[in-house]
Amino acid sequence: MTNIQYSPVTVLGLGAMGRALAVRFVTAGVPTTVWNRTPGRDAEAAAAGAVPAATAGAAARGGELIVTVLLDHASVHETLDPIAAELAGKQWLNLTSTSPEQSRELAAWAAARGIDFLDGGIMAVPAMIGGPGSSILYSGSDSVFQAQRQTLELLGSAEYFGSDPGLAALWDFALLSSMYAMFGGFFQGAALMGTAGVTASEFATRATAWVAAMTQSLPAFAKIIDGGDYTADVFQDLVFTKSALDALRGAAADAGVTFEPLGGLAALVDRQIEAGHGADAFERTVEELRATTSSRR
Amino acid sequence: MTNIQYSPVTVLGLGAMGRALAVRFVTAGVPTTVWNRTPGRDAEAAAAGAVPAATAGAAARGGELIVTVLLDHASVHETLDPIAAELAGKQWLNLTSTSPEQSRELAAWAAARGIDFLDGGIMAVPAMIGGPGSSILYSGSDSVFQAQRQTLELLGSAEYFGSDPGLAALWDFALLSSMYAMFGGFFQGAALMGTAGVTASEFATRATAWVAAMTQSLPAFAKIIDGGDYTADVFQDLVFTKSALDALRGAAADAGVTFEPLGGLAALVDRQIEAGHGADAFERTVEELRATTSSRR
Repeated sequence: MTNIQYSPVTVLGLGAMGRALAVRFVTAGVPTTVWNRTPGRDAEAAAAGAVPAATAGAAARGGELIVTVLLDHASVHETLDPIAAELAGKQWLNLTSTSPEQSRELAAWAAARGIDFLDGGIMAVPAMIGGPGSSILYSGSDSVFQAQRQTLELLGSAEYFGSDPGLAALWDFALLSSMYAMFGGFFQGAALMGTAGVTASEFATRATAWVAAMTQSLPAFAKIIDGGDYTADVFQDLVFTKSALDALRGAAADAGVTFEPLGGLAALVDRQIEAGHGADAFERTVEELRATTSSRR
Repeated sequence: MTNIQYSPVTVLGLGAMGRALAVRFVTAGVPTTVWNRTPGRDAEAAAAGAVPAATAGAAARGGELIVTVLLDHASVHETLDPIAAELAGKQWLNLTSTSPEQSRELAAWAAARGIDFLDGGIMAVPAMIGGPGSSILYSGSDSVFQAQRQTLELLGSAEYFGSDPGLAALWDFALLSSMYAMFGGFFQGAALMGTAGVTASEFATRATAWVAAMTQSLPAFAKIIDGGDYTADVFQDLVFTKSALDALRGAAADAGVTFEPLGGLAALVDRQIEAGHGADAFERTVEELRATTSSRR
């Protein structure tokens, strides 16, 4: 179909995501070797044309690009530490969900062993892999990214963020944080409306459009944050924000619904006001996140 | 221009929103009387053609539809209690930000005095009034809504939710809750990215598209919530959700950023797991909001 010659790939880890990646590689014509610690998970990939390997070391010998899609950071080391010698000189793409610090640790481990390390954060669920909505964020070795770009594009849109191997994970975590907070807000609204007999589906119809529309405010917020001046052109100040959040808290209490999904934001706003910033812009809230020690909830 | 004969309107309260409403009425050809407790706020509306009144009672005599856009619930009573007799037989639209319970109280107060009460929740900022993005949610008297519909449409799209006078405010509060939680998530992500030198504007470009795309999940969440069965077709269970939130918490701690915008959601998930629902769908979180007494944060 195409003239692209893909270099052989090894997929270590055949959970739902690993299986989706392996099947996508195979069906696109990439020579693919697969392995999973727990046996019996390789049937789907093998049926699609992947070569199952009995050990991680044997699997690693089959590929030039080694892709890890394991449970967590610890399982990456459990799998790769014993076969580090097999990996020397190869390219390694880690798609295991690891934190920015963990990705940086893996990069340092790899560098000490002559392995070229690229980290990736998958912004998709397994069913989306290879489809139009799939996006993967990369950082670390530019040479792996460039050499394997066509292979990476098979999985979803591929973007490279820089040589800091923790950056892709940081982007991943920052976007996921935004998503989960938004989900928490949906639960808050759905619970409130439920007290008046409005179904979650009725609420969702309107909330989906409303919240999506409100995301259009974010670039303007960001401009104020980056400008660093929270006193000029204040559209909504912190005191107004507090009164709005207090009203939402009161309505939740009246309805017998907890306010927890918004409690943390309200606490940040309260502390900013206590610190004397009540007349400053709402966007100043981000400073309270930076200022607070991580020991707080 | 048009043949519409609008009945005269009185706007009580000339803060930023009251002024925007009054100017919009006047410029559309609605005979408009205005009043504000603190003098000197009526210049803009008067210049546009509104008739300033010296007292709330005099203002009320000028309109068939009385619109209150005051500071809060208490100021509504302070303004209207002394002139209740002037209002008997009139139509009253309350656009003051009041809670669902406060709106219901105002409706009962109005009913006892022969005043026809409609409550509205404005889903717009003053600059949007009369423009394409402006939306106002109404509940309470169907007869006021029907009689004044053309006048209401001047302000923004007008939707009627039912005779419960608290329903518009509940919708308003539920949507605002969703919005503020989403904003909190943006701050969380922006603070995280800032620790790696990525500007809030760079983050916003991607976060806006990502969060807006993720709102498309909400109708599917709602379907599961309304179905009430959190054990069938589980796409993401609570244990997985907890591990994801714990990873986000850890990354925030590594970066020296507080986790507060997500702390409440994480606590709800933790309590659901403690209660034995770890294998149930993530959407079950909404039950923990309903189950929790409102005394918790």
